[in-house]
Amino acid sequence: MADISREDLDEIYAFAVELGKQAGKMLMDAAQLRINGGDETQKEKEHVQKENAVDLVTETDENVEAFIKTQIANKYPLHKFIGEESYSKGSSRDYLIDSAPTWCVDPLDGTVNYIHLFPMFCVSIAFIHKNKPLIGIIYAPFTNQFFSSCTGRGAFFNQTQRLPLVRNPVPPMSVNAPSGCIFSCEWGKDRRDTPDGNMHRKIESFVNMATELGGREGRGGMVHGVRSLGSATLDLAYVAMGAFDIWWEGGCWEWDVAAGIAILQEAGGLVTTANPPDNYATDPIEEVRLGSRLYLAIRPAGPSSTETGRESQERTVREVWRRVRNLDYSRPGA
Amino acid sequence: MADISREDLDEIYAFAVELGKQAGKMLMDAAQLRINGGDETQKEKEHVQKENAVDLVTETDENVEAFIKTQIANKYPLHKFIGEESYSKGSSRDYLIDSAPTWCVDPLDGTVNYIHLFPMFCVSIAFIHKNKPLIGIIYAPFTNQFFSSCTGRGAFFNQTQRLPLVRNPVPPMSVNAPSGCIFSCEWGKDRRDTPDGNMHRKIESFVNMATELGGREGRGGMVHGVRSLGSATLDLAYVAMGAFDIWWEGGCWEWDVAAGIAILQEAGGLVTTANPPDNYATDPIEEVRLGSRLYLAIRPAGPSSTETGRESQERTVREVWRRVRNLDYSRPGA
Repeated sequence: MADISREDLDEIYAFAVELGKQAGKMLMDAAQLRINGGDETQKEKEHVQKENAVDLVTETDENVEAFIKTQIANKYPLHKFIGEESYSKGSSRDYLIDSAPTWCVDPLDGTVNYIHLFPMFCVSIAFIHKNKPLIGIIYAPFTNQFFSSCTGRGAFFNQTQRLPLVRNPVPPMSVNAPSGCIFSCEWGKDRRDTPDGNMHRKIESFVNMATELGGREGRGGMVHGVRSLGSATLDLAYVAMGAFDIWWEGGCWEWDVAAGIAILQEAGGLVTTANPPDNYATDPIEEVRLGSRLYLAIRPAGPSSTETGRESQERTVREVWRRVRNLDYSRPGA
Repeated sequence: MADISREDLDEIYAFAVELGKQAGKMLMDAAQLRINGGDETQKEKEHVQKENAVDLVTETDENVEAFIKTQIANKYPLHKFIGEESYSKGSSRDYLIDSAPTWCVDPLDGTVNYIHLFPMFCVSIAFIHKNKPLIGIIYAPFTNQFFSSCTGRGAFFNQTQRLPLVRNPVPPMSVNAPSGCIFSCEWGKDRRDTPDGNMHRKIESFVNMATELGGREGRGGMVHGVRSLGSATLDLAYVAMGAFDIWWEGGCWEWDVAAGIAILQEAGGLVTTANPPDNYATDPIEEVRLGSRLYLAIRPAGPSSTETGRESQERTVREVWRRVRNLDYSRPGA
């Protein structure tokens, strides 16, 4: 398949930016309707009250995805579309992204936050070609935070500030990483109390990262802070921003991470697998596979007097791998 | 000591609102200086580069506190002032709030976030009289989120939207709380790997709240989500908003929570102690003591067909107490 020309890619980027803004506004308008409740017209009021928040959110989720899908189909009828809502209703969870030009969309990431009107929700739109996320759009309308990138054009916050935010110079990773780092992680939906199940493996990993140096039989990482926002997409956006140093997670699907990976990679971040290889200290650090469901992201880093930025990122990857457990997430049928 | 008149209190409130806006702007201006780095004048650039982020943040913290303190001293010379920065340099951590009109200020809450430029930082200003927080101002300038309240005047988001956000009607607490709730908690700074120390007690409590119903020998709470923002002040603000249902924390000082408690109480929330009493199911639910360092906050709740809002809040308190450990925080000398 032929490459997409620079001109065409820039046009797709401009289209994606506008699409993200409109979709984010739809999310916020629907949230505002729930907030205003009785201040709206009687018809809207009845609509809001007759269903619970979860049903309303599902409806919004589907409406926004349908809007995005239609806009894309009108503008680029030959492009593939993979959306969370339509995908999860299908019977297959096979990995559907191939080398064709493909849009990968989560109309609403941070669904639990949206249900509770906690501002950390967003729309996430990625454009992928030859299995590479080339364009990423993330818009969190409640706090008016807009993240965007196009390969070769840089990554941006609110379209004007380049990512990472601090870039004169971009700081290297902490010398004693993960100490000094903000570690972002999520508890997720799988809360089964299964001995050695994913939840307990995650918690053991979180505790290792958090505990004082020397603690946990030498695995203590004494990170500067542990953060959980409830949105994988925004976690990645904040890694691209440089605000989070490390994000480690298992279980996400492509639409949760595609736009965030595009933005983070364009900003200079590193994304690989969550699961430590057999020899965490020396095995190669492979580039992330979009459908792997296992992700470890490190923020953009500049050089120090002793390391390149990439070297300090890779050192951090190995220090994380030393402290985390393997997670058991696979694709159905895989 | 005489009560403060309605007129005087309203004047103090208006003054506090403006003070919060100015202080928040100072925080954001200093952050922007670190972001812009080399785009600024040569003199500023050298200043930014010669010190590390932590030193710069400490300087900003002290500058903002000095600004707030001076403004208050000029306007209300007879009022007491307790600020985090000046307090922590003093030798005493005795509880200093008495019945006098007192300002309790954290110029920068979420210091770790601010160091890393993660947007969840804020200024926090409370006005207290007769040991009651009467006015609360919380301003997170990066995301332009402004929370304010004055006793008898309501609590507000961005000065126009009343808190909690959803209020037609205000939803009752979940029937199976903590299931269905967003649970907000913080890992904090104390990461000692001490068996049965505070960190391990906290983690055990978090895991109980998160695990599936029936798990953890019946203690599993299956909360809808676990969130950690790294700012006690913003945690409380989001409880007042109704976005977080439950916040449970030990170790905070008065300036971390005074403004948040003022806003949450004015919005209709409940604040009591983090530590379960001997009989969690029947012992009285006492009102929070500002200096206790142990806090459990429940969002504003409206009535259902079977309970008053207060009843559903109290039910939730007892369900949390059933799942959490006692934490060991006291005041030096206490």
